Parts: sequence; C-alpha cells; structure tokens
Amino acid sequence: MGLSKKPYRGTRDFFPADKRLRDYLFESMSKTAESFGLEPYDGPLVEEVELYKAKSGEELINDQIYSFHDRGERFVAIRPEMTPTLARMIAQVYRELPKPIRWYSIPNLMRYEKPQKGRLREHWQFNCDIFGAPELLGELEVLGVLVALFENLGANSSHFEILINDKKIVEGLLQNKLELSAEKTNAIYKIIDRSKKVTPEALDKMLAEQDLNSEQDKILREYLKINEFEELAKKFVTWGLQDLTNHMLGFVELCREYGLSEYLTYDPTIVRGLDYYTGIVFEAFDKNPENRRALCGGGSYGGLMQIFGEQPLPGVGFGLGDVTLTDFLKTHQLLPDFSTAHNDIFLTYQTPAGQSPCLQLARELRKRGLKVITGLSPLKIKKVFDLGSKHGASYVSLLGEREIETGSVEIKNLTTKEQHKLKLDDYKNIQSLIRNKL
Amino acid sequence: MGLSKKPYRGTRDFFPADKRLRDYLFESMSKTAESFGLEPYDGPLVEEVELYKAKSGEELINDQIYSFHDRGERFVAIRPEMTPTLARMIAQVYRELPKPIRWYSIPNLMRYEKPQKGRLREHWQFNCDIFGAPELLGELEVLGVLVALFENLGANSSHFEILINDKKIVEGLLQNKLELSAEKTNAIYKIIDRSKKVTPEALDKMLAEQDLNSEQDKILREYLKINEFEELAKKFVTWGLQDLTNHMLGFVELCREYGLSEYLTYDPTIVRGLDYYTGIVFEAFDKNPENRRALCGGGSYGGLMQIFGEQPLPGVGFGLGDVTLTDFLKTHQLLPDFSTAHNDIFLTYQTPAGQSPCLQLARELRKRGLKVITGLSPLKIKKVFDLGSKHGASYVSLLGEREIETGSVEIKNLTTKEQHKLKLDDYKNIQSLIRNKL
Repeated sequence: MGLSKKPYRGTRDFFPADKRLRDYLFESMSKTAESFGLEPYDGPLVEEVELYKAKSGEELINDQIYSFHDRGERFVAIRPEMTPTLARMIAQVYRELPKPIRWYSIPNLMRYEKPQKGRLREHWQFNCDIFGAPELLGELEVLGVLVALFENLGANSSHFEILINDKKIVEGLLQNKLELSAEKTNAIYKIIDRSKKVTPEALDKMLAEQDLNSEQDKILREYLKINEFEELAKKFVTWGLQDLTNHMLGFVELCREYGLSEYLTYDPTIVRGLDYYTGIVFEAFDKNPENRRALCGGGSYGGLMQIFGEQPLPGVGFGLGDVTLTDFLKTHQLLPDFSTAHNDIFLTYQTPAGQSPCLQLARELRKRGLKVITGLSPLKIKKVFDLGSKHGASYVSLLGEREIETGSVEIKNLTTKEQHKLKLDDYKNIQSLIRNKL
Repeated sequence: MGLSKKPYRGTRDFFPADKRLRDYLFESMSKTAESFGLEPYDGPLVEEVELYKAKSGEELINDQIYSFHDRGERFVAIRPEMTPTLARMIAQVYRELPKPIRWYSIPNLMRYEKPQKGRLREHWQFNCDIFGAPELLGELEVLGVLVALFENLGANSSHFEILINDKKIVEGLLQNKLELSAEKTNAIYKIIDRSKKVTPEALDKMLAEQDLNSEQDKILREYLKINEFEELAKKFVTWGLQDLTNHMLGFVELCREYGLSEYLTYDPTIVRGLDYYTGIVFEAFDKNPENRRALCGGGSYGGLMQIFGEQPLPGVGFGLGDVTLTDFLKTHQLLPDFSTAHNDIFLTYQTPAGQSPCLQLARELRKRGLKVITGLSPLKIKKVFDLGSKHGASYVSLLGEREIETGSVEIKNLTTKEQHKLKLDDYKNIQSLIRNKL
C-alpha cells in the first residue's frame, strides 16, 4: 500500500481557495477586535499538562487532549483551548498594565474528538478577553465585538441571536428558593444545561431521579419555560427574587443603549458548565433550524488568576470556532467566492525576445505594489485571455515582435476589453492604468 | 511549588508588542508572495510519521521530531517542516492545475532542539514553492520573492547576500573529474558542507581521512577557494569541465536581467544535504559578521512526488524562519516600533451621564471602520491625554456636562493639539476629522 495522500483524521488541508476563505475570516476577526482597541497575542502550541489540570481539573482534561511525554520526560499537550495560556501570560504582566486589559487571539487548537459536522480535531478559535473592566462594561464590549464580527461578515438579526443568562440567577433560584444542597445544585445544573437538547420524556426522567418535592419541581419547570426578559422579571417578582435579576436586566439595558437589543434573547438553560463562569453567560446561535448549534460561548469569570496564587482579577471573554462559523456563513450564503486568486496583471510575451523585458517589467511593477503573475514561456495570443481569467487577473499584457521593435506593450482590461499601448518603460503610467487611475 | 508562569522550554509567549511584530513579518511575507502570484495554502498541525520517513529516511527524523501515538494508536508528529505536507497536497491536485503551480505558506513548526540564539523549538517558517515551471524560471521567481521580501522589509545588498551553487557542478567535479565512488562522493559532500564552519586544521584532518591522491586533493582545495562567478567559469574551463557550469551561469545571467545580480555571490560550499536538492541551491546570509548565519535555504528538487508513486514534477522552493529573520532585522535596526497599539480615537467622558452617548458614538464610529478604544468610567481631563498616548490613539474625545447639555463633543488631535467641537451625532464629520479629511 502506498503512502496516504489524505490529511490526518479530523484535520484539514487548506488548498488555496480554502486558505483564502480562512484568511478572510481571520482578517475580519482581527479588524473587528482592533476596532474595539483589543490587542493581539499568541502563545506556544504546546503547554505542560499541569497547566490544563489546574484550570479544568484532572478528569475533564484526560479524554480529549493530545498529551505526550517529550524527550526530557516533561508531560505536555498540544493546546486544546487558549484560556490557560492566556491566564499564564496575564499572570506575568497584569500588575504593570493599565486596566482594562483587552486582548484577542486566533490560535489553532487540537482536541481528540470523533470528527463530525461542526466538530474536528484541529480547529482555529477566535478568543477575546477583557480583564479588570468595571462591572458589566467588559461584558458589553465582548458582546459588542461578537456582534460587530457577525455584522462585518454580512450577518444580521435574521441570521443569528445571542442567548443570554446569568449564573447568579440560576444559583440563587436553586440555592435560595429551592434550598438545594451544593451537590444537588450541581446535578440540576447539568439537567438545565441538557434540557433543550433532550426529549420532554428524557427531561422528565432526569428530573424524577432528583427526588424534588412537588413545589421544587413546579418552580424549576416554570423557570425552564421562561423565554423573554419581561417574563423573567415578572416571574422572579412573584417568587420574591427580583434582586437576582437586577444584574442581568441592568446589563440588557446597557446593551440597548449600545444598540445590541435586537440580538439578545433570554434563555434559562444557558449555564455553560459548573465552575468556571461566575456571572453573565451567553452563546451565539444560528437561527436557521437546519444548523441549530452554538457558534460561540462565553461569559464572566473570576478565578483565573488564582491557579497561579495571584489576586482575583475579573475577566470576561468568548471563544468562537472557525468550523461552525464557516458552516453558518455557508448556510446563509454570506461567503464571497474564493475559488480564484486575484492578480492585478498577467504579463505575457509572444516571442522569446519578450522574456527579458517581461521580467524587467514584472520586477518594476511589483516594486510599485502590484500583484503580477508572469507567463514563463511565449504564449499564443488566443490563450492569453483565458489563462488571465484563470489567474484572476484584472489586466493582461501582450509583448510581441512589433511591440518589442517599438519599445511598447499592449495592456488590456479583461472586464471592459479596453486596450492601451504604452511605452514599455513607462512604469508609472502602466501602474496608474492598472490602478484605474488613467 | 506553584504553577509555572513560563512558557514551555524553547517556545515563546507573544505579548501584544511581539505579536504586532510577528503580524508585520507575516503580512510582509504574504504581500510579497502574492505580488508574484503565489497562492496561500496550509495543512494540518499533525501528520503521520510515515510521511516524514518517506521524505527524510528513518534516521534523519527520529531525533528531532515531536512524535507520539494518538489514542487510536496512530503514530503521528507535530510538523517539523512543511515540505512533506506540501508534497502530500500537491500529489492530490497537480494533475488538474495549470502549471506552474505557485504556493506559499507560513506554518508553525516544532523541532526538539536545544534552544539557543536563532534556534527555538517552535518557530514559524515562510515556505515558497513553484512546481512545473520551465527550467531556471521557477528558480528565478523564488529568488525574486526572497529578495523582494528583504527589500520590502527595508533591507538591501549592504545587509544581506545570497550564496548560490549548483549541485550538478559539485557532483560532476567529484564523480567525473576526481572519479570518486558514490560512497566517497557522499563523504566529500559532508566535508564541503562543513568546510567553512571549521578551522583550517580541522578541514585538513577531515580531508586526510579520505585518502585522496595528491591531484584529487589539490583540485578539491582549489575548488573550495573559488568565490566569484568569473573565477568559477575560468577554473572549470582549465579543468575541461565548462559544460558543468553553463547551467548556473545561465541562471546568473537571467538574475541579472531581472535585477538581482547585486545580491548573488558564488559559494562552492553550499550543497544543502545529500539527496533532496538536485540543481541550483542557495542560502541567504546576513552580511554582519556578528550575526553570520543562514537566514534561509532552498533550491531545486525533483523527487518529491515519487514518495507517492507519482510521476516526477520539478520543484523549487525555500524556507525562511521567523527567529533568524527577526534577529537580522533587529541587528540592522530595520524594525518599526511595535511597543504601543495604534487606535484612531480614545473616547472618554467626564461625567456619568456621558457613558451612554459615549457608547453610542463608539458603536457608530466602529461601524464606519475606525479603531475606537473607550474609557469605561468618567475620566478627569488631565488624565485623558496621557492615557490616550498610552493607547496609541491619534485623537481623544471629551464629553463633559457642558458638551452633553449642548449635544456636542470635543475632539482633540494628540499630535497637533488642534481641538474641534462637533455635534455628538454628526458621525460623518467626526469620521472625516479623524481620517484627516476635514
């Protein structure tokens, strides 16, 4: 059996059309983040496993990470997520930096997953985090970045929504109103998290296993049915728990002032895991029922610096993967066509004597910032236009015996078919013509 | 002992200033490659070890790669170089693509090295390759990309040079003139490769071990002293071997027509390993004697497709690492200052009532493509300018009680100190002012 030409399971080859699409996404991410004053960072591909254990605990990390011993017997892993690296870096510098600290990154990450739609072993993730911002204003900025990214990619509130909740609401309901133990609270968190992903029967079964009394069961089921901010407010007033909702409803008001209301939907089932997040939590969702999956998740957290024995530093952030984002943009036909490259001009010559002047012209036009692709042997005129289109060229040049005799070059616009004869060494005018300034 | 805040040995944390530098290098690489019509690609972070063995042979890969068994017992490695991935991808598509195929990539790679100046365990490498180009014209294009990259980064022939040779010259000299066996040819290759890196005594010792006769020894030593193209031509004429040098001297003439002569130097000791390269080979060197190291290496190769049982496809390419490139640019003080971010405007407010209009203004200016960083609490005027500079802002805004009463905003240019009062909702003029168009 010969050597396989396929990429390793769950990873992708990025041929030029794929890579141009990826570049487009990453540029949109960078530009959006930088329009909010976020600064770029990156860390190593590999970290010691201890770091991941410190953030996620022993059991959580074992199944899915690519871990191994290096030749010096250090136990390391290919990064499965960026947050531990971010925490390690912030711990080095947070004392010196003016707050808030606003950072973003687009790392490649690996997890040992069963490959399926929207889930691969290697993916890229747009990470935005803000540390040390006044309450709720960091949350507003990261949501602002998230919405602006989607808007910059051509999406609007008909395409996606942001489901939002506050961990403190759920915690207060379970512990103060239902008076559940910490252990039972954790079990119920997991049921809340899964409640919309399972059948009503399965939900009944999970709840039955928790031995709630009829009042607890009733309140929990009422809570799970809430799907609007007004309803949330009213319901918690009737329960005498209005204090619990003030924080998030204040945030929703702030989002309204900034102009994000149309994207926000209350969802009581967004809890995002047990320990890590401590306040506002959110997930962005595709509104298309065919592609109903989380595009991104995030929220506020408090304890990240403690793993290094540092003082608490409030943080808020989100991660958004390239695979689900691409599926989303394809579903809604929001992606430009990346199948061909773009070049400013395809330089050709029709006689061997054209090679040298063609090379010189190429060098001069490249120095002037143009994208120049050259034919590397004499090319028949009838082939020039077709090949120029294949190269995504806006213009082609022709250089035959007649042009060489007169020291000129023919330059043709492939769209308008307009043709100009220019002096072969009049680089400035050739540049202007191609830049559409002539 | 607490959790370490340091990155894994031989890898780097990229804080914002470092990441901006890296972004600058990568953008220069992409723009330069695309100015030659090269198209971007990328592959997986991890490949099966079989692929690396097929290219480099069993012994060569074992010491330095990060290899491990995945949970499905596949033997894989973090990519130590890009060429095997490139070969695998090209093998999938080369039949369908018009030739030449021009591709570039900037992957992160890992090798298990002892960290030292210019050599880390994780680095990024700019890879350019051209397949199926007419003889010597692919070589010219990749050298063209290399030189253009250095020029675009501000370097010229006082800073770097390209040492060049032709594997066929060395092979012909050793096998036809000196009549050495294949085995001895390989041993001499290694000595030629090392000859400038060791003392004259060490070179004598290595040569003595080869039992050359006095004529062979004399010719080899004369060969190693050649350092100009003219001398090469003359010497090989006197040896009756002028056919061997025609190929490379023709290439040097082509480089002259394209305008690269000033960068090229003949170096008889450039051979770049035993098997892989088959024709023209080159290395770029820093001319500063303090930083005398190869910045990049490349050449022509023929056999890459054969590892997949495919027909031969001539290729030529180079790889250039980010660590040595950064050292080079620092040595010659060619790097811009990346210590602070750049933002168009730092939006501040001096009274709590300014928060909401400030947020709205931020949203509108960001929609118009500006980089806007906001203060997240009321800020005293005397602190605004200093903090604005720290954020790398070109402008700052002031929004106090008086401005709010009159629905206006003060906007100040931090360089010229000019100040303008504009209507708070006159986004168009605020944008024009900041874009220096008012």
